[in-house]
Parts: sequence; C-alpha cells; structure tokens
Amino acid sequence: MTSPAQQDPPIDDWHETLIRVRYSETDKMGIVYYANYLIWFEIGRTEYCRARGFAYKDMEANDDAFLVVAESYCRYKAPAYYDDELLIRTHITEMRRRSLRFGYEIVRNSDGQVIAEGETGHVVTDSDGRVRSFPEGYAQRLMAAPIVKSTIPTGNLVPDREGPG
Amino acid sequence: MTSPAQQDPPIDDWHETLIRVRYSETDKMGIVYYANYLIWFEIGRTEYCRARGFAYKDMEANDDAFLVVAESYCRYKAPAYYDDELLIRTHITEMRRRSLRFGYEIVRNSDGQVIAEGETGHVVTDSDGRVRSFPEGYAQRLMAAPIVKSTIPTGNLVPDREGPG
Amino acid sequence: MTSPAQQDPPIDDWHETLIRVRYSETDKMGIVYYANYLIWFEIGRTEYCRARGFAYKDMEANDDAFLVVAESYCRYKAPAYYDDELLIRTHITEMRRRSLRFGYEIVRNSDGQVIAEGETGHVVTDSDGRVRSFPEGYAQRLMAAPIVKSTIPTGNLVPDREGPG
Amino acid sequence: MTSPAQQDPPIDDWHETLIRVRYSETDKMGIVYYANYLIWFEIGRTEYCRARGFAYKDMEANDDAFLVVAESYCRYKAPAYYDDELLIRTHITEMRRRSLRFGYEIVRNSDGQVIAEGETGHVVTDSDGRVRSFPEGYAQRLMAAPIVKSTIPTGNLVPDREGPG
Repeated sequence: MTSPAQQDPPIDDWHETLIRVRYSETDKMGIVYYANYLIWFEIGRTEYCRARGFAYKDMEANDDAFLVVAESYCRYKAPAYYDDELLIRTHITEMRRRSLRFGYEIVRNSDGQVIAEGETGHVVTDSDGRVRSFPEGYAQRLMAAPIVKSTIPTGNLVPDREGPG
Repeated sequence: MTSPAQQDPPIDDWHETLIRVRYSETDKMGIVYYANYLIWFEIGRTEYCRARGFAYKDMEANDDAFLVVAESYCRYKAPAYYDDELLIRTHITEMRRRSLRFGYEIVRNSDGQVIAEGETGHVVTDSDGRVRSFPEGYAQRLMAAPIVKSTIPTGNLVPDREGPG
Repeated sequence: MTSPAQQDPPIDDWHETLIRVRYSETDKMGIVYYANYLIWFEIGRTEYCRARGFAYKDMEANDDAFLVVAESYCRYKAPAYYDDELLIRTHITEMRRRSLRFGYEIVRNSDGQVIAEGETGHVVTDSDGRVRSFPEGYAQRLMAAPIVKSTIPTGNLVPDREGPG
Repeated sequence: MTSPAQQDPPIDDWHETLIRVRYSETDKMGIVYYANYLIWFEIGRTEYCRARGFAYKDMEANDDAFLVVAESYCRYKAPAYYDDELLIRTHITEMRRRSLRFGYEIVRNSDGQVIAEGETGHVVTDSDGRVRSFPEGYAQRLMAAPIVKSTIPTGNLVPDREGPG
C-alpha cells in the first residue's frame, strides 16, 4: 500500500533545458570543473518547475518553502568543453510529503554523448530551516504533466527592446 | 590621423544576449555577488563573436590567439536577483593591432532597469602568453556588422532529440 | 578644507593576508580566471576588518550595515597559477560618512611578482538597500591602526611576521 | 584475498586542513551553496598530498598524471555560514593501480558540528585523458604516513617579505 503522502514519480517525464558551457566553468585540465555540474542540476530544477507553470522563487518568496539540498551525487562519464551546448534532463525520482529527489542527465547536444548522470535529495524547510511539508498545490504541480516539455533558461524569444519605432 | 592599425569602433553596434540569474550567483545579501558580472561580460564577448560568424574557441584552438584580460571595470547600478532575465549588451570600444576593449551594459529584461555597466581591456597573446597581433581575418570580423543582432547562449531552438518517430 | 565626515586614509597601512590558488579558480588557459580576483578582494576586506578587531559579519548581523559594492576595478599584470601562494594586500583609499574605497595588490609569495592591482568602491546600506551612514564605532575602527598587521583567513594563529624585535 | 594492485587504505589516517567560508560561497538562503563543498573536497585532496611531501601540481606537470573525477557524493548535514572556520578532513578509502577514492568530512571548527560528509572517485589519466597507472612513487606516497597531520592551505608561516633581517 502506498501512503497518500507518497505518489508515484513521473519517471518517464524528463524535462529538458539547454545551456552553454562558460569559459569560467573550465579548469586547467581544459575541461569543465566537476563542481559546476551541481550548478547545472540546480538550473534543471528551476526549469523543471517553470515547465510546470510556477517559478521556484515564488515558492520561496510567497510560500516560505525552500528545497534544501540534503544529498548530491554525480557520475562523470565524459568531459565537457568550453562552448559545448549541453542538454540538462531532469525528472523527479521520489516524492514524499516533506522531501523529494531529482534525477539528472547531462547530454552534449552536438553528438548525443552522455556527459554525466546525477541525483539530488531535498528536504522542504521554512526560512528558519525547520522541516515542513510542501505548501498547498506545489506537490501536485511538481507531479503534474509539464505545460511544455522543454525550456531554455532564458525563454524562447529574445524580446525586441527597441519597440515598434 | 588614425594609424592603419586602429579602426573606428562600431560604437553603436551593440550585441545583445540574454541570460537568467542562477541560484549559485546570489549571496547572503539576497542579490547577485559582484564577481559574477565579469563572468557575464565573458558570455557577452563569446556571443559577440558568434554573432560575427565565428566561435571564439576556434580563434584559440585553430589560430593560437587568446584574448587575455588586462583590465576590468564594473559599475554596479542596481541589484540583480535570482531568476531575473538579464540582457547583456556588448560592443567594441577600441580596436588595435594587438589589443581591444569591450564595453558592456547589463539590463534587466522585465523593467529595463540598467543593472551594471562595465569595460574590459584585452591583449592578444599566443598560448605561451606572448603578445601577438590578431590572426588574419579576425580583426575584420570583429569590426564587421553582425550577422544577427542578438543571440542567446544556447541558440534559438531546443532541438527535438527524439526525432520524428 | 576637509569635511569632518572625511578622514585621511591610512594609505600606508596595508593589511596582508595569504591565500592559495584553488584548482577551481583556473580556466582552460591554465591560469586563474579573471573574476576570481574580485573574490580575493572580498577576502582582503574581511581580513582587513578582522585585523582591526571586528568581524565584518557582525557589522551586517548586529548593526544592519552592509558594504554594498558600487564599483570594481582590476588591472591584471601577470598570470597566477594553481597552487600559487598569493598575498592579498588591502588598504582604505577613501573614507566618507556613507561610503569608502579599498585598494588592493595581489602579490605572488614565492617571487614577489605583482599579479594584480585593484580598487572597489562601497556604499553603506541597511538590509533593505537604503543608504545609511556607518554604525557607531565602525568608521573609527576601520581607520584605526591594526591590531595585527597580517592575518591568514583560517589562522588560529596569526604568526608574527616581524619577529621578536 | 587481496590483489596486489589493491592496498589496504589508511582508513584512520585523516588529514586535516582549515578553510574559512567566503562571502561568494553563500547564496540567498544565507548559507553556503551546495556546489562549493566539492571545491573544498578538492582543497582537501591538494593538502592531503602536500602532507605526504609532494605537490599534486607536480604530479600533473612533471609526471603527466591527472586525478580525473569519475564520481562525487556529498551528504549535507548542517548548514555552513559566511566566515565559519571549517575543518576539511580527508582520507583515502580505496587505492587501486589506476584509481583511488577519497572520503571527506567537513566539521565546523567552533562547535565541532559535522557539516557534511562526502566521497570522490578518481581515475588516473594522462594529459590526453587516457587511463594510466600511477607514476612511480606516487601510490606509495599517497598511502604513506603523513609528514604532518594537518596543514592550512597557505602554510603555517607568513613569510617575511620585507627584508634582509
């Protein structure tokens, strides 16, 4: 029996977002430094939320709920290089009342090479660091089908700043 | 008299690219940490080149020419926040045989607020750090009109990885 | 005439602290990425305060005063490499009621090579970002002679550089 | 039976080094951003080597051997704050001919609170990324008793830059 607090994870529902490797992310080996993958996972989570119709920042600012990281894991399978376009693939692997886990894949866009796989575990807390349950509606939205299957961190359109003139 | 080595900078020819503020770029003040602006300037330079039809990485890899930073300046005019969409505006302010300068503006996309202005000075070197002149063709391309006026670091399209099936 | 709000800067009173270049601070050129210098300047400021007998974090936490960065400048004079020991030299170059400026020098410890010089301008604000004057006592402490001339960021012990004399 | 390629890890032989949390390492939650722990693990490895009498950079530069990261894991047990002094404890948990694993503990110095535990797995490669065995002498030195039990990244002494005396 599954407790009502635990839902089946939408394990096949990967969200995809695209980034480009920055010069600052490389190290003297000529490849991406290994800590940056955790920053990319964070981007994956942010965009996963946006694809479900909400901004993670609003969960923090409006509903006093923070996804504090309790665990991180990354397996580095192939090096990534400056200026590579990388697909960050993100899904939820476990959902509980006060915690969740995300899984990730990093794939080089040009050749489909899997660069890394990873996982992070999170606990929901308030701004004072006390464990709490998800604010109303968020768990449902996180488990819902995405509005869009893929996003890019900056949106699809570069807006025209110059106006109609 | 202008020496042949120095060309008029295309001062009105700003390139624009769009980024989104990462969680990792904020600090305990709740705003973006000030060193990250220099990383964004770097993205501006990379995309400025791409909009002129070449990848900066190829200038390093194929033509043994590196734009080493000799100087950086940034004026912070308003704070930037997590998840803000920011426009990085980049142009060349001075072009010489063995050096160039870029100017930058960071503008929040949602309200047009100017976040920062900056400048960087660069010297062209080979991989051993010796000053050299621009490899053939690059100075011309840097000064040329852009092929596209704005880019985003990850391109305009999120490609369909699954294919037609 | 000097206004009472502006005091003479203790221009010869450089504070010194020592760091070691991290692998993560290098880039694919094999040298330190240029944004990291601003992080080192921040360490210089933190240790400058500690050498005057207070923790900068207490100024934020106890007295609601933040040294927001308004301007940064850095001139890169020689590359720094992984594992280099670098001396961060910090002093105050201008002190006003609601702002101050720091100057910096980064020097490689092994050979005395000057790696970089820089400057940052700061405005004092409260936690809501409103400009305010220094909380009582802090301006005096910042301008006072140091308790110790040099510190190391981690040191339980600040070694006496001058010897027993 | 233990294969000759695998040696017993010196599991009780923790190396300790001390760092101080930088402002840049915090995020808008007011605590250290989770990717920075991997940077600290790297410092732990660098100082572990130094305590065994060699610089990791020399292994790269003189003997063409790189400890490429294949895996990272971190469990975050308590938040770390700006200006905290943290002890990085590092030991080797597995040693093979072409790979090794490090284990880590991060402990706050002021109250002994365990902040995090982690592990990284590494493969030895040459500068072209080909797997190779440890260059002669290094495996032995890594497994040997330390020359000093703890170091600080910047050494115990701030050398006297001034002068002849």
